[in-house]
Amino acid sequence: MSAAPVFLCNSTAERATVFREAFARALPEIGFEQDAAAASTDDVRYLLTWTIPQGLERFRNLEVVFSVGAGVDQFDTGRLPDHVQVVRMVEDGIIRMMQEYVTLAVLTLHRDWPSYRAQQARSLWRALPTRRAGERRIGFLGLGMLAQAAMERLQPFGFRLAGWSRSPRLIKGVECFHGANQLPEFLARTDILVCLLPLTDETRGILDAALFAQLPEGAALIHAGRGPQLDADALLEALDSEHLSAAILDVTEPEPLPPSHPLWRHPKVILTPHVASVTQAETAAEAVIANICRHRAGEPMVGLVDRARGY
Amino acid sequence: MSAAPVFLCNSTAERATVFREAFARALPEIGFEQDAAAASTDDVRYLLTWTIPQGLERFRNLEVVFSVGAGVDQFDTGRLPDHVQVVRMVEDGIIRMMQEYVTLAVLTLHRDWPSYRAQQARSLWRALPTRRAGERRIGFLGLGMLAQAAMERLQPFGFRLAGWSRSPRLIKGVECFHGANQLPEFLARTDILVCLLPLTDETRGILDAALFAQLPEGAALIHAGRGPQLDADALLEALDSEHLSAAILDVTEPEPLPPSHPLWRHPKVILTPHVASVTQAETAAEAVIANICRHRAGEPMVGLVDRARGY
Repeated sequence: MSAAPVFLCNSTAERATVFREAFARALPEIGFEQDAAAASTDDVRYLLTWTIPQGLERFRNLEVVFSVGAGVDQFDTGRLPDHVQVVRMVEDGIIRMMQEYVTLAVLTLHRDWPSYRAQQARSLWRALPTRRAGERRIGFLGLGMLAQAAMERLQPFGFRLAGWSRSPRLIKGVECFHGANQLPEFLARTDILVCLLPLTDETRGILDAALFAQLPEGAALIHAGRGPQLDADALLEALDSEHLSAAILDVTEPEPLPPSHPLWRHPKVILTPHVASVTQAETAAEAVIANICRHRAGEPMVGLVDRARGY
Repeated sequence: MSAAPVFLCNSTAERATVFREAFARALPEIGFEQDAAAASTDDVRYLLTWTIPQGLERFRNLEVVFSVGAGVDQFDTGRLPDHVQVVRMVEDGIIRMMQEYVTLAVLTLHRDWPSYRAQQARSLWRALPTRRAGERRIGFLGLGMLAQAAMERLQPFGFRLAGWSRSPRLIKGVECFHGANQLPEFLARTDILVCLLPLTDETRGILDAALFAQLPEGAALIHAGRGPQLDADALLEALDSEHLSAAILDVTEPEPLPPSHPLWRHPKVILTPHVASVTQAETAAEAVIANICRHRAGEPMVGLVDRARGY
């Protein structure tokens, strides 16, 4: 008889404490370990981690690696045996925070708060032209769970919503575009572009001068995808030439952004330090436990990554 | 036989043009006039205006005065004969803009964007503690149509909503308080206070030191009511003592706020120049036309003001 399967929690001490309690309550039949050095090399079947740790091969019975975050681009999956399954973090906390962030960012641009901020600095009391939400075209790059959840919050305001994804999608109330062929048409109709793409070889550097040039004059960018998707020099040039009106960035390359970087001080840039959406330990523990139950019952896990596709 | 009743549109030329076209389409049987001097003193039955104009008494058959704005506090109704009905502007455009503004302001404070803005100015990359929407207690002073519409947009995020009004209200999903007796309890449970009260003798100066002192440490204010409701000195003191964490103000006293006023430059104040919600000519014309139809059919008008109560 083999010993009980073990869940190895390779994360912060705070997060591990929350997970330990949740596992003790909900999955007492699974062993819990937060010290990789102390874990039995035979018994570890499940691993929660942000990056693939050194020496992983000694856990020869590992079955599933859970990412702490919504993305898995930080995983060097080439270092994982083929049979190991990789699962993104899909949990209520991440989704809710992204709904808040995207709604806040879209409304900030829609109601022209960067201009009002500049006017306030000059003690200038002046109303600026308004546009109805129905005249404001929001476009999502990426139509995954986070984008769809954010659109759910924007829809009641009456914004005109569209999205672009690699493969065709059908979403109620959203004009859907797909593939490289339809990207120009999607960009040409977009006043506020929201990037929520996963980082892959295909999306690295996608937010470049050529893409910005296809947006209409005065368009704005919200970037809550991954830092390496953005060509920061191209963005600064598009803002300085007034082709783009503003940018709200939550991700940069590198992170943290060095203090000397011009994005920090550009008057048309609002910068937040990768806080749009942060994994919440409580809801993340529930999500991982539910997935382990699915896995043990032979059911498909939520957030399972296609390792060839990379997301 | 008397001549056709006349609608006198005492507003900007732009707004009058939109109203003229809408009346020609929908109510051709009502005369339209935008020049008070040229209007027949016998035939004017309806007046749209921002303030009560001089010489109004010569329109001896006047029946209804429509306010251009959502409030009627700018009306000196003592100058109107008792039988004249007064109607606030209740139109879709005002409501939608207020929904946007309040959602934007609440999310700005909930996600601590004033602090991130200060960090950006210092090139500081640092995540701040987060709170779930379910842990954030929003409290509305005033539970009229605008407040209820704003709460509709906040509800899906999961905020804890409460409201206070003069007389009892029952609103699904909202903890309702009323009257002077219940004001302290309402304030004690409110992290973000949103003022959308009408201006009356009772609400003038209501946002004062005594009220701020009853809010919990670190609470914040969103003021989109009327300027004279706020004691600006008391607010500045509450911010400087760090009892309040931030304020977002759309109304001031006076308006425009003089350039030398300290509210302009306070680091914890976001100031917009009375633009939270602006009457939209197209939807306002529809609303006024619908009310005139109701009036002529003997039905109650939407937004009819209780002249004794003042709103």
